[in-house]
Amino acid sequence: MRLGAVRQGRATKAFRHDDRGWFYFADVPDVSALLRIDGWEDHPGAYGPAPEESDLVNPLPAARKFLCAGLNYYAHAVEVQKAPPEMPTIFSKVNTALTGPSDEIVIPAITDSVDWEAELAVVVGRRMYRADRATALASIAGYTVINDVSMRDWQRRTSEWFQGKNFDASTPVGPVVVTPDAFDPADGHAIETIVNGVVEQSGSTADLIFSVSDLLVYITQFMTLEPGDVVATGTPSGVGFVRTPPVGLRDGDILETRIAGLGLLRNAVRYTER
Amino acid sequence: MRLGAVRQGRATKAFRHDDRGWFYFADVPDVSALLRIDGWEDHPGAYGPAPEESDLVNPLPAARKFLCAGLNYYAHAVEVQKAPPEMPTIFSKVNTALTGPSDEIVIPAITDSVDWEAELAVVVGRRMYRADRATALASIAGYTVINDVSMRDWQRRTSEWFQGKNFDASTPVGPVVVTPDAFDPADGHAIETIVNGVVEQSGSTADLIFSVSDLLVYITQFMTLEPGDVVATGTPSGVGFVRTPPVGLRDGDILETRIAGLGLLRNAVRYTER
Repeated sequence: MRLGAVRQGRATKAFRHDDRGWFYFADVPDVSALLRIDGWEDHPGAYGPAPEESDLVNPLPAARKFLCAGLNYYAHAVEVQKAPPEMPTIFSKVNTALTGPSDEIVIPAITDSVDWEAELAVVVGRRMYRADRATALASIAGYTVINDVSMRDWQRRTSEWFQGKNFDASTPVGPVVVTPDAFDPADGHAIETIVNGVVEQSGSTADLIFSVSDLLVYITQFMTLEPGDVVATGTPSGVGFVRTPPVGLRDGDILETRIAGLGLLRNAVRYTER
Repeated sequence: MRLGAVRQGRATKAFRHDDRGWFYFADVPDVSALLRIDGWEDHPGAYGPAPEESDLVNPLPAARKFLCAGLNYYAHAVEVQKAPPEMPTIFSKVNTALTGPSDEIVIPAITDSVDWEAELAVVVGRRMYRADRATALASIAGYTVINDVSMRDWQRRTSEWFQGKNFDASTPVGPVVVTPDAFDPADGHAIETIVNGVVEQSGSTADLIFSVSDLLVYITQFMTLEPGDVVATGTPSGVGFVRTPPVGLRDGDILETRIAGLGLLRNAVRYTER
């Protein structure tokens, strides 16, 4: 099953897509809102036609938490010259940093160091605290794709990465949320960043240092996760800033982010004078 | 004028308090929700009796962004042996980390290094991006008190402070939001942490390295701030971990956090086995 949200005039609407067709939930704008409804599976709505792909919007604009793990692929830890960590590194994004699966990413002229980070993201379906591995896995609503587009200059200004990870509308999310019955990261799905048709990052979702359940068990030691919360799981090797010379996203680039079995984000990059 | 939220049975209700009395807004649970209503000043409601102080709850439980500046008092930068920064350090808290002005702070046994950080927090009243100083100041809804209670061991586990700053219900917020006509940080209000009656931190809100307007101008260079968002402005000197030997909050402690003109948070600390 896939969950998503589609543009309808100036509003958006959440849908479910499975063998029976496309079901549009009444008065639910997106998947983050949907998952916060107790018994959302039985929420009213109606079947309708398939949406245009270009009408798919960020399914999770109202995630109350959007956590990200850093340094979570061995090959990426090597390329950034860090030892594989003993514990997950966690930081967060705010809602204003998110954007849709086909939206233009507009970069203000205050940065000149814009890098890609394809990531698998886990969407929480049930409230959990001090979850064991089985509970954590049973509490997942699904998986989606993000690109943790990072302004490396702003990321390195201070000890905290937050600024470089939270430029307005810089992180595409989507195109849909695929439920765990249809997608298992441990099966090893290809995860890629492709810029102007060239594959820049290529990894497997099975190569996480901390697996999805590791991350959820770790985080819920100290923090309650709630329906609609998101945990992005880190990026594989192939980021731009470690190249010689460093490379990054430029005005006019087409950034594609793909995880086999989940879908494709396709975002044009545009620089603006301010 | 003061804005706040009060417990009413199992729900909460936003109020405004001024010379005319206590006005309770209809169907608005808290100040973060109130500020997101266009023209909230004219939202319907009714006057009522003054609330019991013990019924005041966190006024900002639904802040969509809760940003925090680190290293923002000269004397604190000195005590943690860092140079005064040239740019603000920003990290974030998530909603589950927040708690009320008189709630017990329950510390799980996974940390043994719990420190205090009294902070002035700014509450955003109007959407702003690329704000100049005048626009930033005109966009402030008010000020409140927080204690950025920090688990130093978890804060230092990785390069990112996030984990140590986001234990469930560890950051008290309130007791009210005071509007800018009634409070100006530049006037130099006393800011204090008091543990079991002993003053542990004492500073002035005029001693910020980056003033409130500096912070808002800086943050809105790359990020839109929206009504109800919160920016905590850093802590003065006197944190516990720099003492010899280090000190911290223990089971049974009474943590008081006070900013003159804004009010007092009073939270009992309790350790739990899990």
